[in-house]
Amino acid sequence: MSRSIITITTDFGGGSPYVAQMKGVILSINPEAMLVDITHDIAPQNVRQGALVLEEVTQRFPRGTIHVAVVDPGVGTERKIVCAQIAGHYYVAPDNGLLSSVAIVESPTQIVSLTNHGYWLPEISRTFHGRDIIAPVAAHLSLATPMGQFGQPINELTMLDWPKPKTGANRITGEVISIDSFGNLISNITAESLTAVHDLSSTAVTCAGQTTHGIAETYAQRPPGSLVALIGSAGKLEVAVADGNAAQKISARVGDTITVTW
Amino acid sequence: MSRSIITITTDFGGGSPYVAQMKGVILSINPEAMLVDITHDIAPQNVRQGALVLEEVTQRFPRGTIHVAVVDPGVGTERKIVCAQIAGHYYVAPDNGLLSSVAIVESPTQIVSLTNHGYWLPEISRTFHGRDIIAPVAAHLSLATPMGQFGQPINELTMLDWPKPKTGANRITGEVISIDSFGNLISNITAESLTAVHDLSSTAVTCAGQTTHGIAETYAQRPPGSLVALIGSAGKLEVAVADGNAAQKISARVGDTITVTW
Amino acid sequence: MSRSIITITTDFGGGSPYVAQMKGVILSINPEAMLVDITHDIAPQNVRQGALVLEEVTQRFPRGTIHVAVVDPGVGTERKIVCAQIAGHYYVAPDNGLLSSVAIVESPTQIVSLTNHGYWLPEISRTFHGRDIIAPVAAHLSLATPMGQFGQPINELTMLDWPKPKTGANRITGEVISIDSFGNLISNITAESLTAVHDLSSTAVTCAGQTTHGIAETYAQRPPGSLVALIGSAGKLEVAVADGNAAQKISARVGDTITVTW
Repeated sequence: MSRSIITITTDFGGGSPYVAQMKGVILSINPEAMLVDITHDIAPQNVRQGALVLEEVTQRFPRGTIHVAVVDPGVGTERKIVCAQIAGHYYVAPDNGLLSSVAIVESPTQIVSLTNHGYWLPEISRTFHGRDIIAPVAAHLSLATPMGQFGQPINELTMLDWPKPKTGANRITGEVISIDSFGNLISNITAESLTAVHDLSSTAVTCAGQTTHGIAETYAQRPPGSLVALIGSAGKLEVAVADGNAAQKISARVGDTITVTW
Repeated sequence: MSRSIITITTDFGGGSPYVAQMKGVILSINPEAMLVDITHDIAPQNVRQGALVLEEVTQRFPRGTIHVAVVDPGVGTERKIVCAQIAGHYYVAPDNGLLSSVAIVESPTQIVSLTNHGYWLPEISRTFHGRDIIAPVAAHLSLATPMGQFGQPINELTMLDWPKPKTGANRITGEVISIDSFGNLISNITAESLTAVHDLSSTAVTCAGQTTHGIAETYAQRPPGSLVALIGSAGKLEVAVADGNAAQKISARVGDTITVTW
Repeated sequence: MSRSIITITTDFGGGSPYVAQMKGVILSINPEAMLVDITHDIAPQNVRQGALVLEEVTQRFPRGTIHVAVVDPGVGTERKIVCAQIAGHYYVAPDNGLLSSVAIVESPTQIVSLTNHGYWLPEISRTFHGRDIIAPVAAHLSLATPMGQFGQPINELTMLDWPKPKTGANRITGEVISIDSFGNLISNITAESLTAVHDLSSTAVTCAGQTTHGIAETYAQRPPGSLVALIGSAGKLEVAVADGNAAQKISARVGDTITVTW
């Protein structure tokens, strides 16, 4: 189990020098760390979006990877910063719900509240704990410092409520939980929840007042420009436009209802 | 010849978590791979733009580099996915023309259609072969798995038609093939094709109804804000605005005609 | 002292293939180099912004890091390109003021004008010295080639004038020197310059016609949407909006006056 890969997820914006400062701090402590950006395009202060991205991406990395996440509107307040071991991976993040989507899938096996200043930078700003606390702790973790050294064990993470689809006799009602860079509308309706449907070709999928019939297997199964519903690469129902941008075409947003009837 | 560098080119958008998923898959198979982003800002589904970027950039890397490219509007359909060795480099990409600009410069020495599921992820989505097929094959290639293991040899790649400039007695007519982040208009007219011109200072270069006289050596040879034609860093004629943005200033687009007369 | 980390700062735009070309050149000379992007989102030709980012970020990296910077409106003209050792770090950049903010903090211990073609690419374009001169010199530096090999020693760098705050009996007047991705307005007024103020809670901070009272310690100490002044993570006074974007909310720009009175 290698600990030398460190991923970084923030809401700092692509190309932010703040991200580079964190990388400098990490490499000053462990020049051998392999740094991988997950994304810095989380919408500012959008803890919920950050949590979904962490769930979707982090478990694709090898066991033992360290995932640093900074979406931290409460920086400098009394919210905790934690290190958690979940499903064989390490996470270092503010305890504001950012890890709650990962932790729903599998319970943490160890959680520590970062209280030991010995692993922090000597000077701590009140506005950038990502650089001054989270980055150096992640770097020390990559040097195999045991988690328990970083502070006090705690029992649970702050968890956010996640909307769940409602299933009826001939209907599932979910919602758009994220929109990707192609404008595909990704719902919280899983492939498994559709196994009750005997004939996927008889379904109607409705979002933002627009309906498409049947659930396709590929974008290219529909003519360019037309709406298509399919199971996306995260195993969730999504509404897309073949060779186009669904979010723009049907003016849909995160939180909009998606209904499957059959 | 090292195989440990893997570059990635996609149309997923900067900061897309889809790119990070591919990186996670690669590092899970070869944690020592060195990952380098070429760009993720190819316009969605624009295979032609992707092909030009691959030609312009990839041969700057050391021989043996593995170049992963995913611009794949036909994902999940019957289009092939290939691994090709070209000019001492390896390419893994859908066979939709994405490699045709690189392959015009030098013919591939080996091409394999990826058909051996043994090197793919255990579960294959219908919408993200970049993650499920291309990334793991590239990772295995970086571990020195011979190309022939990945599938069936094939003889040629899908090739796109590329527009060629027309040369007359005192005139060359080409077109804008790409626009860079500075707004410089890069044409398909090469420096070599201008060697017939005895006096470059006597030329007139016209694009989008605007003309500049002479071909300069540097942007700074023209006053700020004025149009300048010069041979760009890829050895092609480009039209720029000194300290400004030519695409915006003269409302030019990819496909617009560029004419050199003398 | 390791020389294997190379950071890159440019105005090429995130996802520019020009950056990838530089990386290819570096890795062709030193395949073991560790490349770290600082930012490519410097506004085109904005040497001053590039200089501030270099000052803010580079010293967070380990001593011996090589920092490549390309914001180069004078490319191809007679401006020098230099390699400078400053505070134990190496910088390779055009000598147009880009290093002047770093060099104000600590004087360079060695400066060389890059004149030895032996370390350049064999073919030099007139428009992309970042790829053809700066990248290969940085790569050779990372292989421990002594700086003196690259050209002629020179005594000083080109320095830009930087605006300084004016301090009065009960007033400090500075200006906005940068705006981050959150829209926070970062000034040139340092924490040290405010030590003369006995009671920070009695201050009024004014920017773009809007005033906030007192200097907070965290963004969260003010209600969401309201203006807040605090000492930011670079040790400078900044004006922000809690959970919001100050630059948009009060229509402020770089160069706007910020006044602290007490």
